[in-house]
Amino acid sequence: MCLIKIKQNDPRQLTMYICLNSTKMKVLDKNYRTIWINENDEEVISIIDQRYLPHRFIIEDLHTVSEMVHAIKDMHVRGAGLIGAAAGYGMYLATIEARHKSSFEHILASAAALKATRPTAVNLEWAVNRQLNVIAQGKTASEKIEIARKMAVLIAQEDAEYCRSIGIHGAAIIEQISKRKKGNVVNILTHCNAGWLAFVDYGSATAPIYEAFERGIDLHVWVDETRPRNQGASLTAWELMNQGIPHTVIVDNAGGHLMQHALVDMVITGADRVTLAGDVANKIGTYLKALAAHDNGIPFYVALPSSTFDWSIHDGVKDINIEERNPDEVKYIYGLCDDEIKKVLITPLNSPAANYGFDVTPGRLISGLITERGVCRANEENITKMYAEKVKQI
Amino acid sequence: MCLIKIKQNDPRQLTMYICLNSTKMKVLDKNYRTIWINENDEEVISIIDQRYLPHRFIIEDLHTVSEMVHAIKDMHVRGAGLIGAAAGYGMYLATIEARHKSSFEHILASAAALKATRPTAVNLEWAVNRQLNVIAQGKTASEKIEIARKMAVLIAQEDAEYCRSIGIHGAAIIEQISKRKKGNVVNILTHCNAGWLAFVDYGSATAPIYEAFERGIDLHVWVDETRPRNQGASLTAWELMNQGIPHTVIVDNAGGHLMQHALVDMVITGADRVTLAGDVANKIGTYLKALAAHDNGIPFYVALPSSTFDWSIHDGVKDINIEERNPDEVKYIYGLCDDEIKKVLITPLNSPAANYGFDVTPGRLISGLITERGVCRANEENITKMYAEKVKQI
Repeated sequence: MCLIKIKQNDPRQLTMYICLNSTKMKVLDKNYRTIWINENDEEVISIIDQRYLPHRFIIEDLHTVSEMVHAIKDMHVRGAGLIGAAAGYGMYLATIEARHKSSFEHILASAAALKATRPTAVNLEWAVNRQLNVIAQGKTASEKIEIARKMAVLIAQEDAEYCRSIGIHGAAIIEQISKRKKGNVVNILTHCNAGWLAFVDYGSATAPIYEAFERGIDLHVWVDETRPRNQGASLTAWELMNQGIPHTVIVDNAGGHLMQHALVDMVITGADRVTLAGDVANKIGTYLKALAAHDNGIPFYVALPSSTFDWSIHDGVKDINIEERNPDEVKYIYGLCDDEIKKVLITPLNSPAANYGFDVTPGRLISGLITERGVCRANEENITKMYAEKVKQI
Repeated sequence: MCLIKIKQNDPRQLTMYICLNSTKMKVLDKNYRTIWINENDEEVISIIDQRYLPHRFIIEDLHTVSEMVHAIKDMHVRGAGLIGAAAGYGMYLATIEARHKSSFEHILASAAALKATRPTAVNLEWAVNRQLNVIAQGKTASEKIEIARKMAVLIAQEDAEYCRSIGIHGAAIIEQISKRKKGNVVNILTHCNAGWLAFVDYGSATAPIYEAFERGIDLHVWVDETRPRNQGASLTAWELMNQGIPHTVIVDNAGGHLMQHALVDMVITGADRVTLAGDVANKIGTYLKALAAHDNGIPFYVALPSSTFDWSIHDGVKDINIEERNPDEVKYIYGLCDDEIKKVLITPLNSPAANYGFDVTPGRLISGLITERGVCRANEENITKMYAEKVKQI
């Protein structure tokens, strides 16, 4: 495992850090993506191990399917798009392993193991199935490996392209609000991390923000810290800081108050799974922000690449199985203390805790879905119109 | 300062601890209240320094007004009722100090300093004004001290009595739900700490829970951790654990999901300030839970002693000044690590944060206000009917 430790309080290192990221994120052909085939060994996958952000920047090399399974399960990588890409690369590792084991059984077992890592993320199943379909066409082990490598790269590349398009469609909405406010600052609230760290590049919820910021629109982002794992406080804030975008971290409890006082002009979140009826499963707490936006007449958008749709289900509250995670994620929290990352207990030792990973925001509370094809209403009619050929396949 | 350190993982000490609390809370005449005149020196006020809970149980002795001001401002004591009682005892300390300074000026300056500690808490102003009115009637310094001491004790005693009544009125609601559910467990969600630690005894939101539990009703409490200061995770969970009441700590984001899945039968919160129109200022995030309860047809109650009413204002969103606290409360969190309380950084070092202490839940989202006189709707008509003589005074 390669470690690059960057201390935030060392200005020299911080500069290096900023250049590194901004170059990589903004220049597509020299992109520092969240996942890639290792430059020195094409049978190794490199990832940013996101568990140590924003305090440590660590790159991890994954050599086996079981290491990839562990990385997804234990959230070294997380976020809808990135999980999909990771599963794609995981299947590539499976074909490499199958070469030695000379067995398609191993590929199927790897597929099952990868699918089981995170039950709510639809991209996972989608990417694995896509790989299974093409790998089956390879006649030899080498052919299978080559096919899987290409497909893994394609899945990652498509993810980045989709996010770029989401950015363009979403920035148009921000631009309209900016015009209505006569160029005054546009305040955008976001929940969790649907930034480039959650995808391969650009992000979903952040792509419109990055695009609008590049166009010179005056904006400011309220960053929900997003308990229990604090992806907002640690990842979104870190991304925005590195891009130089004005932002303020708030607790998840604060959004309603800000909306009541006209301090939020729009909300953009990502999604982990969206039903045909436009119901959105996303990080726990999203539903509460949607309710507050609705109560205060503030537009609430969800940004997603179409791979996030689950065309087979309608009622999100009834039909989406919400992942329950380890209660210790609620009881303990990680942070920096004396330049070391420490884990501290924040409840009575013997109090039980529950840890639901996601909630479902009904389509009725959503102003629009920002997809790579454009913006549509969060209902079956409009989604079907925009993705007619995909819906028909079901 | 007297320190009593209790380690949660030492069963012997834990038992001692439980006895101590349950005896004190349940037996009125031997009550371990949150604030009291020191047993050995009646010119000293003792408090539980709540900043170290649930990990350390510390009693602090306060000798001066400025120590009391510091204790309120820095949240050694917190919660509507307890702040009122602390202000009452603070004014008693002011009369003691004025004896040496022979000046009513000092009493007035102390009143101003106490009022300025926490701008949102109406009990503070109410308790200080009540003291000022009676202290002015004392002719000598000794008379003033005696009057202030009696009034401080009376304010504390009334607070406990009011909470006891709130418990009885609120338990009737829990009992009804229990009957409707044929004795199956009643799931109650609460936000922040409106427990006995927030008052002198019993609590407001917890009083109905304690009373219902004593009556043998099968119940379970979902405890919102309540970021940024985690009063739910640290104080409410600790209270419930010590009383032996089944409970589960959740992140503030989780309540909406639980309500969508019928895992919450009612919500009870406390209040920091309630307007004549029934709008409720309470810990930041309360409004979001009220929206979710409303969206899912779940009763949402606010429990408060009448001292929490501010009869002079109507529109809570417009008229209540919401306290902004130190952003470091968002950026850093305290917890137990290697048996020591550590402070850890959870955001990028240079990301700004904002820290709004409270939000306002409009009366339209509230099923009822549970007061010491009974339960009423959260609107001007019903509040005026229940508190006619107090409203008339305005």
